[in-house]
Amino acid sequence: MILQLICPDRPGLVSELSGWVANHGGNICHADHHTDPGAGLFLSRIEWELEGFSLNRESIASSVKTLADSLAGKAQLNFSDEQSRVAIFVSKQSHCLLDLLWRFRSGELQMKVPLIISNHRDLESTCLEFDVPFKYVPVNSKNKLEAEKMMLSLLSEYQIEIAVLAKYMQILSGDFLREFPRVINIHHSFLPAFKGAQPYHRAWDRGVKLIGATAHYVTEDLDDGPIIEQTIAHVSHRDEVDDLVRKGRDTERMALATALRLYLRRQVMVYRGRTAVFA
Amino acid sequence: MILQLICPDRPGLVSELSGWVANHGGNICHADHHTDPGAGLFLSRIEWELEGFSLNRESIASSVKTLADSLAGKAQLNFSDEQSRVAIFVSKQSHCLLDLLWRFRSGELQMKVPLIISNHRDLESTCLEFDVPFKYVPVNSKNKLEAEKMMLSLLSEYQIEIAVLAKYMQILSGDFLREFPRVINIHHSFLPAFKGAQPYHRAWDRGVKLIGATAHYVTEDLDDGPIIEQTIAHVSHRDEVDDLVRKGRDTERMALATALRLYLRRQVMVYRGRTAVFA
Amino acid sequence: MILQLICPDRPGLVSELSGWVANHGGNICHADHHTDPGAGLFLSRIEWELEGFSLNRESIASSVKTLADSLAGKAQLNFSDEQSRVAIFVSKQSHCLLDLLWRFRSGELQMKVPLIISNHRDLESTCLEFDVPFKYVPVNSKNKLEAEKMMLSLLSEYQIEIAVLAKYMQILSGDFLREFPRVINIHHSFLPAFKGAQPYHRAWDRGVKLIGATAHYVTEDLDDGPIIEQTIAHVSHRDEVDDLVRKGRDTERMALATALRLYLRRQVMVYRGRTAVFA
Amino acid sequence: MILQLICPDRPGLVSELSGWVANHGGNICHADHHTDPGAGLFLSRIEWELEGFSLNRESIASSVKTLADSLAGKAQLNFSDEQSRVAIFVSKQSHCLLDLLWRFRSGELQMKVPLIISNHRDLESTCLEFDVPFKYVPVNSKNKLEAEKMMLSLLSEYQIEIAVLAKYMQILSGDFLREFPRVINIHHSFLPAFKGAQPYHRAWDRGVKLIGATAHYVTEDLDDGPIIEQTIAHVSHRDEVDDLVRKGRDTERMALATALRLYLRRQVMVYRGRTAVFA
Repeated sequence: MILQLICPDRPGLVSELSGWVANHGGNICHADHHTDPGAGLFLSRIEWELEGFSLNRESIASSVKTLADSLAGKAQLNFSDEQSRVAIFVSKQSHCLLDLLWRFRSGELQMKVPLIISNHRDLESTCLEFDVPFKYVPVNSKNKLEAEKMMLSLLSEYQIEIAVLAKYMQILSGDFLREFPRVINIHHSFLPAFKGAQPYHRAWDRGVKLIGATAHYVTEDLDDGPIIEQTIAHVSHRDEVDDLVRKGRDTERMALATALRLYLRRQVMVYRGRTAVFA
Repeated sequence: MILQLICPDRPGLVSELSGWVANHGGNICHADHHTDPGAGLFLSRIEWELEGFSLNRESIASSVKTLADSLAGKAQLNFSDEQSRVAIFVSKQSHCLLDLLWRFRSGELQMKVPLIISNHRDLESTCLEFDVPFKYVPVNSKNKLEAEKMMLSLLSEYQIEIAVLAKYMQILSGDFLREFPRVINIHHSFLPAFKGAQPYHRAWDRGVKLIGATAHYVTEDLDDGPIIEQTIAHVSHRDEVDDLVRKGRDTERMALATALRLYLRRQVMVYRGRTAVFA
Repeated sequence: MILQLICPDRPGLVSELSGWVANHGGNICHADHHTDPGAGLFLSRIEWELEGFSLNRESIASSVKTLADSLAGKAQLNFSDEQSRVAIFVSKQSHCLLDLLWRFRSGELQMKVPLIISNHRDLESTCLEFDVPFKYVPVNSKNKLEAEKMMLSLLSEYQIEIAVLAKYMQILSGDFLREFPRVINIHHSFLPAFKGAQPYHRAWDRGVKLIGATAHYVTEDLDDGPIIEQTIAHVSHRDEVDDLVRKGRDTERMALATALRLYLRRQVMVYRGRTAVFA
Repeated sequence: MILQLICPDRPGLVSELSGWVANHGGNICHADHHTDPGAGLFLSRIEWELEGFSLNRESIASSVKTLADSLAGKAQLNFSDEQSRVAIFVSKQSHCLLDLLWRFRSGELQMKVPLIISNHRDLESTCLEFDVPFKYVPVNSKNKLEAEKMMLSLLSEYQIEIAVLAKYMQILSGDFLREFPRVINIHHSFLPAFKGAQPYHRAWDRGVKLIGATAHYVTEDLDDGPIIEQTIAHVSHRDEVDDLVRKGRDTERMALATALRLYLRRQVMVYRGRTAVFA
């Protein structure tokens, strides 16, 4: 069991939460807390073994809700044996998709991947190799509204918990995000540097000595969502734009895979437009 | 207040510890725990504000002892407003000493430095610049026993809590360490590679592409104590041994300063010849 | 064209080599040199455009040989438009193989892969997905000599230039290496730390804060060949052996892919049991 | 001797330059070249031993000028035994100044430091400890023009070759830079992210997982000059703004010291608003 809770800070919270677990016979194997004095917030992630726990699955949820309500907080509960259902969005580039699918197949990423959505057909055969359903949803300036409805319908049909934009080169609308807010994106720069398009060209022009990639939650303000993970690579004057793109692919793969693994293990909590990563 | 506790693992420990703090009116600002399933050990670090705590300073210690005994554990207690008294041991090289003294003077390292011991006089004037008492204790093959007695007596006289070997080129005996066990050393390699002497020459010969430094607790088995921090630097075929030494100085300074800061903030706990670093 | 040359150092070598290129109408796009004063050696890598070069392909080789002989040196010549023929050796683990094949398929690694050899059948279907010939050569304590002969025969038949051990868990004999010396291996530790077996278990026991991987040329002295690339990952007390293995996989993939790319671009030169990497 | 030359690219340049050295009896110990195809530029750095060179010091300069003119290029010539005269500009923060002075005193930075200029008196005593002349030049909104004239006069009087802004919190005018263009600055962020003021506060607000520092040449467009070196540090949600500042100090020290060492060794060449770093 993993409990993630955010609530206003006050004395006794760690004791209260851990007491709740102990009173029901649970043995905490990990517990991590963070206090944000500026906002007066308390964040907690508690992981315990379900074996020997006195509440059954159904009762846990309502007991946690009562607990969270009493703290004026917001709780999220996850059973370690239930795998998240993840949809991957792609366009034409394969490196992030393949990296995620490999890690998925090797058991490194504990999840289900019942759905891959793309606005191009290029990666359809790759998805077939991995036995993952591929849905082609073309997007253009005219059909965007309709396409997003189609995608939302697919996310619902396949009971998707979280969507991962693995080099999906379309911008999701605010309406889409309000209906399906759990989306992780990989941005090909060290945000907030080089927001927007063609970051590698602009990084080359600027003559930077390091490039980076940023995995973040998607919000309506493009490239402004809470950052989960950032990775970097060294570059030199010998690197042409193509070399930056190549090195960038590795930073993108690593950042996105790390961010998704942190999410799946419920190690990420969002507050004040930022994340706490209990790693 | 910071409480560090190690005890055999069993259900309810987080609740018990945080309950003890809460019951006395303490507000936990940081709490971190680790369970080592292999050894059946539970490690905990809890930090709370003394303000409003119902126990006075004298009572806290005995209350903690009772608590730790009841858990068959070992506790260490520190008042955040009491600064550690640190002795720095040096020989001839200045880079680590200067780095520590700068960080000390700028307030980055919260400690007192009432004593610097050296087997050479080279750094005496530097210590004077920083107004730190310098004691010259020469060591040679004949007087080693006597010299160590002298040093132990100084450590006792100046009420030193922890000794930092900042490029002190002498080996401390088992007898010394049994009497004064709290010693942190900086080793000029990425342990366990290149144990022993002249690591940079040997790293050059081996043609490594990375060099490192290791800050660790000192044990009788040389270079085998619990590792606190490791840092690395990239090297290339263009780097001669002197370049490795130069780059090594920076990795040494960073690793030692980080390790000492972690110690001073009570973020390091030792178990099974390893450390948990609650950073 | 890429010329790599090692010879005894003396004044005028850069002029002589670049003069040879210029006299035949070549335009140098990259030139890199290194002098090892300790050994009195001069290493040079010169890359120029073949277009407009006055020597034809056949004449270049003999002209370079004459040049190298006059300098008592050893030269290697490569045409940029001729791709290396690479054999990949694997056992059961797929992560390095898949990484190399992906980079191969995406055009990031400019090479041909006409042969994959394995002592297990586990990865046969993966190789088929990538349309790469898979040869099963079982190895045990009794048939080792015979198996190596079989592998040498395959390397010869497929005109392999270099073999890459991508988690191939067998040791190649000195006889094998004398007949086919160009072999790159990935070692799952930060050499020379944790030579030999089970490095991640031993790294965990030692409580290191960084783990690494080393890509190196294979020599008869196991784990002692010239190092091409080393990568690292941070670990903490929260990481169990399995986490070290997982993080290690990423460091291994990166180090091996980087080393192979450097080799394919003729950026690696071996001297004195070390490498110069002209990156 | 070190020769740095930039000129339009054409075949035969490496041969011509190295031939010039060889013809005068020089033995090249390092030679590095870079071609920028986009701009049609050729950059070269050649280092050779003066011993046995047939030209005397006076003749070298004019011979190099003739050579550069014939290539329509720009050359810079440095005698390895002549140390650069460096002025350090500071305000109130000491960490970069102290780092540079330590490296200077230990011989790691081969330079002369005949002048330190500050708009505050805070670091005067520190400079005295290191026996370095300290000049107080207050700057305010009214006297800026006059203050800059004073500084230019000091730079001229002390025959300064390069100025290093080691946390000098004033902006130098375009007029100043036109008269004294050789200035290196340390910017407390990973440019181009967080240009301008208070980057650590803004980095905290944005919730980045990495912070950085950038050493760059100063141009009239603030924070836009050619980047020489960038360094980074990992941060987490546990780091408050003060922690970012503390970690930032180390990245700043490292980036500035590295950039200055690269400059002193004539390893940096500027072209197209970028740098080639021949390291």
